[in-house]
Amino acid sequence: MTEMRTLKVALLGCGNVGAQVARILIEDADALAARAGARLQLSGIAVRNVNAPRDVDLPQDLFTTDAETLVKDADLVIELMGGIEPARTLILSALQNGACVVTGNKALLAQDGPTLYEEADRAGVQLSYEAAVAGAIPILRPIRDSLSGDRITRVLGIVNGTTNFILDQMDTTGAQFADALAEAQRLGYAEADPTADVEGHDAAAKAAILASLSFHTRFALENVHCEGISNVSAADIAAAKDAGFVIKLLAIAEKLTDVDGKEGVSVRVHPTLLPREHPLAAVRGAFNAVFIEAENAGELMFYGQGAGGTPTASAVMGDLVSAARRLVLGGPQRTETTTGHVPALPIEAATTSYYIGLDVADQPGVLARIAQLFAEHGVSIEIMRQTIHRDAESNVESAELRIVTHRASEAALAATVQAVKGLDVINSVTSVLRVEGV
Amino acid sequence: MTEMRTLKVALLGCGNVGAQVARILIEDADALAARAGARLQLSGIAVRNVNAPRDVDLPQDLFTTDAETLVKDADLVIELMGGIEPARTLILSALQNGACVVTGNKALLAQDGPTLYEEADRAGVQLSYEAAVAGAIPILRPIRDSLSGDRITRVLGIVNGTTNFILDQMDTTGAQFADALAEAQRLGYAEADPTADVEGHDAAAKAAILASLSFHTRFALENVHCEGISNVSAADIAAAKDAGFVIKLLAIAEKLTDVDGKEGVSVRVHPTLLPREHPLAAVRGAFNAVFIEAENAGELMFYGQGAGGTPTASAVMGDLVSAARRLVLGGPQRTETTTGHVPALPIEAATTSYYIGLDVADQPGVLARIAQLFAEHGVSIEIMRQTIHRDAESNVESAELRIVTHRASEAALAATVQAVKGLDVINSVTSVLRVEGV
Repeated sequence: MTEMRTLKVALLGCGNVGAQVARILIEDADALAARAGARLQLSGIAVRNVNAPRDVDLPQDLFTTDAETLVKDADLVIELMGGIEPARTLILSALQNGACVVTGNKALLAQDGPTLYEEADRAGVQLSYEAAVAGAIPILRPIRDSLSGDRITRVLGIVNGTTNFILDQMDTTGAQFADALAEAQRLGYAEADPTADVEGHDAAAKAAILASLSFHTRFALENVHCEGISNVSAADIAAAKDAGFVIKLLAIAEKLTDVDGKEGVSVRVHPTLLPREHPLAAVRGAFNAVFIEAENAGELMFYGQGAGGTPTASAVMGDLVSAARRLVLGGPQRTETTTGHVPALPIEAATTSYYIGLDVADQPGVLARIAQLFAEHGVSIEIMRQTIHRDAESNVESAELRIVTHRASEAALAATVQAVKGLDVINSVTSVLRVEGV
Repeated sequence: MTEMRTLKVALLGCGNVGAQVARILIEDADALAARAGARLQLSGIAVRNVNAPRDVDLPQDLFTTDAETLVKDADLVIELMGGIEPARTLILSALQNGACVVTGNKALLAQDGPTLYEEADRAGVQLSYEAAVAGAIPILRPIRDSLSGDRITRVLGIVNGTTNFILDQMDTTGAQFADALAEAQRLGYAEADPTADVEGHDAAAKAAILASLSFHTRFALENVHCEGISNVSAADIAAAKDAGFVIKLLAIAEKLTDVDGKEGVSVRVHPTLLPREHPLAAVRGAFNAVFIEAENAGELMFYGQGAGGTPTASAVMGDLVSAARRLVLGGPQRTETTTGHVPALPIEAATTSYYIGLDVADQPGVLARIAQLFAEHGVSIEIMRQTIHRDAESNVESAELRIVTHRASEAALAATVQAVKGLDVINSVTSVLRVEGV
């Protein structure tokens, strides 16, 4: 065997994922060298506190607080610190030095991706971030490479395990949101401050990344319409279940033509009704999955663990070995293509189907009046179902009306709901939720 | 915009998939150029008969019967003729000329892959074959690149749509194999001569390719143990269903330690019982899916259309654009790593769980005698369930015994079944099937 090159790997951050990456680099050194064609030598781990306790037992002399010096001497830099600074400055410094960078920092990519991608292009090095979306699931490379000869038309992703766990609990046990959240926190699926997960911010960052790669256009966080699940009630879940649906928090990126005939991409995160037979409906617990529709490939789904130190470390290591192989082979690293230039459509321009639950008076002609009102607003009804309840004590009858619409614009739907609320026969609008997969 | 390079693309074969590839190259020329960084010019299509009818309307002057000349002048060659010769000679000639080759020819790869891979290595060009396994599903690139820093321990694949359709029909309708096959032929899911599909040969070629990439070792068709589905009866399906299982034809590659403690990879294709809650159990009709277990990533699944001209063309185009991008960037193409050197284990050394159905005499002590016999052969029983039937006319009672074992070697199981057959209380052994996913 000929003498192998050694590539220096700097690791920034040693949390949940970082500690596992360090372990794999040390434990699997021989197998990794065989696959990369070079020895991957962990040259140091930059942390805030060198004496903090770690998930994995690692040689103490690897730790340093001097990230800048570590980065300057590395061929490959793995950034797993999270947050915007100093991650951003360190990544830029690594790229400028000609090092390839692997990161899982979705927040930074969604906020300031273009600056980083441009710097990588300029330096002819690779910036890879498979770990930033859907943890262990290989999804970014298939979109970027395997589907590079196809046209993706739509991406629907369950990309946040915390909210999927909570919604799955609510669906299975009938629990209210607050109780399911408490259970998720007890089991370690949700953080003490669950805002980033339950309000959809984490999923929104991933939606921006998925949309950018799928449509060859750079979308930022500000292009993503975001609604979380804290307003989803047990009653919503029960009604959806009764109608053959399950509620999932989806990250959606789809090509649409808006009301003025302008083509664009709608990128959004919101609770969504899915038919129970849809492949994404079967994704349980904290698992993730991404469903892709492409013109030629048809429907594809990618399923696996979306979080956790060891699974996410697998994605980091895949990026690292791939970048190292290219360094060994020579020639520039591959960079992203952003030749699509499709505009991001505001949420008002997006069209989806809707589910609307109404508590109505049980009087003759109510259905006709409501149907008429939908028609006047240009919202076409696909399914309308009325259920009558009689209160045993008061003997008062009430009726529940469930409507699933065909695709309608956000604006038309909002106007319709507003008008419906004004009808004297309406007691209340119990839920308004978007529907996909029908 | 700077002047773009033009890369000449030769297409060999214009069947189902080839015609769609030609269509996409022509229709999507601008988008493909933007993504590849070079114009992909279809320089010609080699066919046996230039006047044969095609699925797609294509310029007549593209067609030629002179494949050799076409290949000599190409930067990229797409081989979709199928069969061993002349495909093999043409691919070798293309590689020797320094062209990158994209093929979907699983039979050739499984039979003579090593010769082709070595020639590609020598020439420093890429031989890609995503379309050879599971049609549109990006599975080979994720295994090769995304999981390159992980250790795959097991691959279970539904990689033949014809047999999945037949087994799904049998499961849904209770049909016998022959009737389900006839239905599949009527709907175009099975060919007039269905041997290659139903006897597992097609799946075996794909199993060899999946195993080679997953375990960084070249496995050939002769390393694959292969059993088809023509012996699976409606009674087998019904009994499996009753016990909470579904029967699928799986391509399996897994790392095992044989009875002598030797590590190796077992590559095999056979009808397999899967628990109904296993993600692969939900793969219906002619769809394909590959389930992967890796040390760090955990469980992953990739799902989509496994055949059809347009979906398979998507996989071909992904390989083509990826190879073209690298030609534009410069530097050698990436080649496979085969540094694993794990031995292929013969089927006798493989261990799996088994399902055994027995028609037994309804006498006291029968269960104990059978259990004793299993124990003597070192086969541990996980589940044993007896059902008593009474014939209304004759009033004779018979008993059906269903056994699921823990992992046992093929040899131990065969010896056990042989011994069980010798017991006077056994009327017949109704089925012996392997079980995965428990």
